Amino acid sequence: MTARELHLNVNILHSGFSPAAWRMDGSDPRASFDINHYINIAKTAERGTFDAIFLADQAAISDRVDFRPLTSLEPTIVLATVAAHTDRIGLIATASTTYNEPYNIARRFATLDHASNGRIGWNIVTSADLPQSRNFGLTKPVEHSQRYQRAAEFVDIVKALWDSWEDDAFIGDVSTGQFVDVSKVHPIAHNGPHFSVHGPHNIPRPPQGHPVLIQAGGSDDGRELAARHAEAVFSASQSFEEALDYARDLKSRAARLGRSPDGLLVLAGLATIIGSTEEEAKRRQEELWELIPLEYSLTRLSGVLQIDRERLKLDEPLPVDIPLPPDGGHTFFKATLAFARRGNLTVRQLIRALNGSTGHRTIVGTPEAIADDIEAWFRAGAADGFNLMPDVLPSGFDVFVDHVVPILRRRGLFRSHYEGRTLREHLGLARPANPYSTAAAE
Amino acid sequence: MTARELHLNVNILHSGFSPAAWRMDGSDPRASFDINHYINIAKTAERGTFDAIFLADQAAISDRVDFRPLTSLEPTIVLATVAAHTDRIGLIATASTTYNEPYNIARRFATLDHASNGRIGWNIVTSADLPQSRNFGLTKPVEHSQRYQRAAEFVDIVKALWDSWEDDAFIGDVSTGQFVDVSKVHPIAHNGPHFSVHGPHNIPRPPQGHPVLIQAGGSDDGRELAARHAEAVFSASQSFEEALDYARDLKSRAARLGRSPDGLLVLAGLATIIGSTEEEAKRRQEELWELIPLEYSLTRLSGVLQIDRERLKLDEPLPVDIPLPPDGGHTFFKATLAFARRGNLTVRQLIRALNGSTGHRTIVGTPEAIADDIEAWFRAGAADGFNLMPDVLPSGFDVFVDHVVPILRRRGLFRSHYEGRTLREHLGLARPANPYSTAAAE
Repeated sequence: MTARELHLNVNILHSGFSPAAWRMDGSDPRASFDINHYINIAKTAERGTFDAIFLADQAAISDRVDFRPLTSLEPTIVLATVAAHTDRIGLIATASTTYNEPYNIARRFATLDHASNGRIGWNIVTSADLPQSRNFGLTKPVEHSQRYQRAAEFVDIVKALWDSWEDDAFIGDVSTGQFVDVSKVHPIAHNGPHFSVHGPHNIPRPPQGHPVLIQAGGSDDGRELAARHAEAVFSASQSFEEALDYARDLKSRAARLGRSPDGLLVLAGLATIIGSTEEEAKRRQEELWELIPLEYSLTRLSGVLQIDRERLKLDEPLPVDIPLPPDGGHTFFKATLAFARRGNLTVRQLIRALNGSTGHRTIVGTPEAIADDIEAWFRAGAADGFNLMPDVLPSGFDVFVDHVVPILRRRGLFRSHYEGRTLREHLGLARPANPYSTAAAE
Repeated sequence: MTARELHLNVNILHSGFSPAAWRMDGSDPRASFDINHYINIAKTAERGTFDAIFLADQAAISDRVDFRPLTSLEPTIVLATVAAHTDRIGLIATASTTYNEPYNIARRFATLDHASNGRIGWNIVTSADLPQSRNFGLTKPVEHSQRYQRAAEFVDIVKALWDSWEDDAFIGDVSTGQFVDVSKVHPIAHNGPHFSVHGPHNIPRPPQGHPVLIQAGGSDDGRELAARHAEAVFSASQSFEEALDYARDLKSRAARLGRSPDGLLVLAGLATIIGSTEEEAKRRQEELWELIPLEYSLTRLSGVLQIDRERLKLDEPLPVDIPLPPDGGHTFFKATLAFARRGNLTVRQLIRALNGSTGHRTIVGTPEAIADDIEAWFRAGAADGFNLMPDVLPSGFDVFVDHVVPILRRRGLFRSHYEGRTLREHLGLARPANPYSTAAAE
């Protein structure tokens, strides 16, 4: 058995997780719309021997774009461009199972995997929000369990399409004129409650067999989907204990489905604000805070709590009668409410304490302090790695790669060069066997 | 008024239009699955100052992949990668309005346009065939007029999304904290028979305003869609007279809709087999023919005629009772049947005469002869340019760029360097005004 390896992934959340990131010195306000921004960060990630870069997605405009950058450019197109400018870094794109067709998603990710020589991952999301639903013919989001049923069937189909070509189906024998061995290309003939897809795929099996499957479900349905299909999960635990519980729960669910726990990695969300001293880090945090318009924070808080913006009075506590929102977003909702009530904070104090947070754990400190935290979580099994969210891009990520990564390397926690070429190899995940070839070999 | 300019586009049809292209000396059998194949041809096209490269598409496996390459890798992903390796060449991808959602297509092409600095075109297709329909939950293709109604509404929505950000909506003022001027970002609130899309788009207006819209409709519905929306059409005329009629019909339809005929370019399909002498070209044609398995040709002919393969006897004429196929493919069906009946050909003779044809006009000859043909069609207005289909890729295209292009340049027909940077500029098409800005200016 080889030693467990730390995995690092960077979330390119437009200009950084801080809503004011685009206003900082060294930031380009137009960065989130500029393909070179993504290319440059990917190159830095490659220099830092990261496992992958990651792009979230939303097929709708965000709230309050008057104040902050938005999820915008389509991730699979961005990553195809980034692939051409890089050599080793893994590339993870988000795509929704609710607003796409499985044949199209299978093709796009298979094409990306061929074009990048096996560096692609798919972050599977089910899209809970209203704005997206209204861009796809609906007046409200698809109900939670329906979304997850559709997602499970969707992923089954995509895997079956990727497997519909055996690995050695392509022949290309110039002398005989045989191009493909059609006995090794199989229709999938899927007929399910949400989809009918005949197949076969029109692309040879991807270099990785399957692009790596990633998920981020916190709900019970989400955990079941992750336990069944995911090879890595993005988690959003606020505390060490919560993270440890989550990792154990997920791995035991996977084990119950007959999967090895080594085949399912937990990557914990980690927002960072780094300074060369703790004071410098705190000053940077303060500077970022000062640049966030109060109006933006109020809108965001009313969105999380799903109450009318007018009900929030800056110098009073939260209203007492805030109902549980009907669907989605419960985790962050509950955490925010509990936090405010525990400290009996005014709205102004609460906003300050949340500090433009993304709902992910934030560490403010020196490279050493951040490396200590990463090491502690990793060694205890609260995480197999981290999905990093730098405060500001590129500056906050440059500092991580130049000052935190060397510490992790010195401690023997993190690679100093790539051993493998594919994302699957970086993550230590096995290449899935093709079910037809396996059957034939038995 | 500036002089009319010849436009040249190359169709990267996997290994070339000849079914045996992949077996020729200098071909790589694996080329159609290799991203470098597309990159290399795009670079050659750029060296030849072509307007664009073009990728057809089909979201299903082709017939008889045992004998020949297939439409495989997804075009928007391929072109995003090609964009990163090129600087000026236009990039045209096919996408279907029948098996996609307008919000997703608007985003992918807008992202491509941003990532390529304005070099993208969208070839709009409606997907008539059975194999694709069976990958998207259907048991037969959507009926012709339904497809075109959906397509027209689809394109209206995509344009409205691209226009939903005024050109100057992005502000990015670090000092005031204003990121976007939200008064210049507009919901589209579309409610139609096929789609409801609220919008606005989540991407600033593309560099070209709209990526260039291309269509290939030969039917009455197809011509109407082209006259209404297309800025270039790919035509498939077999003769000069047919081409002239088609061009005149299309431009008068556009004029009736109030559009300038200069805003709608006709690019005629042109397959080429080139030799340094006519004899050499004919030998190359013969060589390609010898490499096509007879079984492949019989299957293809039975497919075009939509009759059972077993009914074709090699040394007898076609059966007399071949019915008109129920939907789609009539043009090529009729031409093939008329051709066979006129010459009273046996099946063997017919297959030989069709010569692995794609349904497009083929010229076999010297660079001089091909340049003469191009000049004659262009000067008479039978075409504004050509959608080139080399017999073999890359070899047949290298010869065109190295030997035909210089002749066209010497004759003053074709550019020797790029004047513009965007596909729209190469094609001499105006950048569409934004309807909101136009309204405000009035």
